[in-house]
Amino acid sequence: MGNQNIYNYEEKYSLKGNICYSKTITELCIAPDSYVICENGICLGVYRELPESLREFPCYDYKDSLIIPGLVDLHVHAPQYPFRGLGMDEELIEWLNVHTFPEEAKYADITYAEKAYDIFTGDLLGSAATRACIFGTIHRQATLLLMEKLERSGIKAYVGKVNMDRNSPENLRERDVESAGKDTEKWIEQSLGFQHVKPILTPRFIPACSDELMRRLSDIQKKYELPVQSHLSENLGEIQWVRELCPDAAFYGDAYDRYGMFGGGYPTVMAHCVHSEEAEIEVMKRNQVFIAHCPESNANLSSGIAPVRSYLENGLQMGLGSDVAGGTSLSMFHAMAMAVQCSKLRWRLVDSSLAPLNIEEVFYLASKGGGAFFGKVGSFERGYEFDAVVLDDSTLRHPQKLSVRERLERMIYLGDDRHVSAKYIGGRKVMGL
Amino acid sequence: MGNQNIYNYEEKYSLKGNICYSKTITELCIAPDSYVICENGICLGVYRELPESLREFPCYDYKDSLIIPGLVDLHVHAPQYPFRGLGMDEELIEWLNVHTFPEEAKYADITYAEKAYDIFTGDLLGSAATRACIFGTIHRQATLLLMEKLERSGIKAYVGKVNMDRNSPENLRERDVESAGKDTEKWIEQSLGFQHVKPILTPRFIPACSDELMRRLSDIQKKYELPVQSHLSENLGEIQWVRELCPDAAFYGDAYDRYGMFGGGYPTVMAHCVHSEEAEIEVMKRNQVFIAHCPESNANLSSGIAPVRSYLENGLQMGLGSDVAGGTSLSMFHAMAMAVQCSKLRWRLVDSSLAPLNIEEVFYLASKGGGAFFGKVGSFERGYEFDAVVLDDSTLRHPQKLSVRERLERMIYLGDDRHVSAKYIGGRKVMGL
Repeated sequence: MGNQNIYNYEEKYSLKGNICYSKTITELCIAPDSYVICENGICLGVYRELPESLREFPCYDYKDSLIIPGLVDLHVHAPQYPFRGLGMDEELIEWLNVHTFPEEAKYADITYAEKAYDIFTGDLLGSAATRACIFGTIHRQATLLLMEKLERSGIKAYVGKVNMDRNSPENLRERDVESAGKDTEKWIEQSLGFQHVKPILTPRFIPACSDELMRRLSDIQKKYELPVQSHLSENLGEIQWVRELCPDAAFYGDAYDRYGMFGGGYPTVMAHCVHSEEAEIEVMKRNQVFIAHCPESNANLSSGIAPVRSYLENGLQMGLGSDVAGGTSLSMFHAMAMAVQCSKLRWRLVDSSLAPLNIEEVFYLASKGGGAFFGKVGSFERGYEFDAVVLDDSTLRHPQKLSVRERLERMIYLGDDRHVSAKYIGGRKVMGL
Repeated sequence: MGNQNIYNYEEKYSLKGNICYSKTITELCIAPDSYVICENGICLGVYRELPESLREFPCYDYKDSLIIPGLVDLHVHAPQYPFRGLGMDEELIEWLNVHTFPEEAKYADITYAEKAYDIFTGDLLGSAATRACIFGTIHRQATLLLMEKLERSGIKAYVGKVNMDRNSPENLRERDVESAGKDTEKWIEQSLGFQHVKPILTPRFIPACSDELMRRLSDIQKKYELPVQSHLSENLGEIQWVRELCPDAAFYGDAYDRYGMFGGGYPTVMAHCVHSEEAEIEVMKRNQVFIAHCPESNANLSSGIAPVRSYLENGLQMGLGSDVAGGTSLSMFHAMAMAVQCSKLRWRLVDSSLAPLNIEEVFYLASKGGGAFFGKVGSFERGYEFDAVVLDDSTLRHPQKLSVRERLERMIYLGDDRHVSAKYIGGRKVMGL
């Protein structure tokens, strides 16, 4: 069944093409007609000329194609993929009740999950993303099935069985905290054997998790030393609701923090942070909580536009998320374009002191920025895990000469899965020629 | 050379499929597994069962595909297509000077124009648009070449040689008003022979057109009874500049109106209207000036978000424009999605009294709303010109059942030229099987 054996996995090789990667958020490196070297899944750097010592190893020549680090989707809901592009006439809470929860309830049926997750995994594999932080549903078996499919595809991902026990329909709620805890531990035990896919603790969001459930998850986190993903300060109505549900919490994020699930000890990524207050931002900074900025979802659900410039100036850890199905597309190109566009609208309409994002910045966020959640990921600097995506943009015709920098910029607005012609993850080729 | 002879053009035929079209801005008609009838290029309506009298004529069965009226791009710059997705770190005026004018100057070279307009026409033909209002450049010959290519493709379009004589580089300025007038008249005379493509008077925008030039164009308009296209109230700096350039004009639009080029007599379409003041809107309504709403461009150039809901409530004529290369894509699906998304952000960030746009509304704007500029265009009601686009969405996989309405909604967010499998314009098949 697995793909592990059908691809050659050379110990040492190089890819040749027009290589683009971020060193810092302001420094985009462009190496036309150059080589990027992989040894045992780790990048040895980029060379204009292949060093003598490397000439005996295979070189895969992608000619005039662009080669970029694999992109990282820091926030996506696999079970919501079937209704991408549908039913976005509500704000967050109504949207969850009307569209999301009824769809997620279907994953109690493993046959449905099988069909749906085949489609999701296939499309994610065909995209420019090599890593992702993925929400499953409350269902242990369906979540394990998703993990198996991702494992076979070669995609490296954190995947979470969702925990939720209140403010959600009967058929999408943990029976009680005790069984929720047992079920979650069983899921973790069963998923520890995967090589590419890892479990991540996933309380859905504060409105759907009782204090007792949070306490139990906190114990599980410590026992298994798991990273955490959840949602934070996405929508004004949601934030007000959290205030009412947790009157003791100083701010939304504090409702995670009091259970030790807000960074500090273990890697934590929070989606959205559209309306985070100052105290919340300070704790996120101190605890190195990652922000998954999801601009398309924040537009579709009328949430608003996160002050990304301010987060960058504050030195917060950040990447981009597609947030399917609040977002419509798995494309990280689309996420980058929307991040630029929304930052311009925010600058024009809300706060002209926060300059719009530029190409260098969103490319960094989609690669090295989000990649940091996975370790040394998202760049072609020496020592980084070797995730590479080959982009053939030859179908985007043009009458004039374009530099490699211009072709990369254009891909952010015009690129899609048609242009992804090969993909390597951790040194292993997972698709393409 | 021409395509005119390679397609069969039956006098009377039907298309079979899942038919979707707007009757009004609130009434989206969905006819699953039905027939739409064409006679001599005119639509005879939609039927669930093929009437007895029509059974002897050919029926092209598109099975489970969607069939929609051809979409209408009310504002696009053909010569800017080469730099779509590039160089959008400036606002309007700087962007024109740094990116647009240097590119447009290249069209003095007919060899360059030949290459560039081949690409533009090919991509427009492959898109879901069947009609467009197109800006060329100042160059008569290149503009005629563009018109020839469009004519051969079968696309129905208004195309304008651009007029501009100030605030633009030496090599992109009419020599003097006299020669501008002569050249423009010559272009009109030369283009009157086209069947599908028609000339439209195109003063670039007030900052680039002297009073003398406007006066001359006004005479030409009356002589040839031409429609007009231009730009209006796009950017705050631009509006302030117009105030300084035309201190006598009561508002930006008045600077067109005093030369009789602001609707009333002849069809007129103005792109953008992001920041139109009340007096301007009143005259636009009275004179039935069309608004080309270009949401992606307005985001990319940090112009803002037009109050579309308010224009709709005011009963203004309106359609959507891609505004390439302020916009990055010719896709009218993308224009629809951005129109919804931007209206939500405006609702959240600027004015919660103006409700966001919905699917019915943007589909209407992209079809019948913009189509009205061309006459009875953009619907499958009886008597409308027969523009039809067949959409094969089978590659967008899903595990659940979807209604035709849902599939149409999804196409707005996920559709692109891959899904356009056949296209008819004025009854004539111009692409596909």
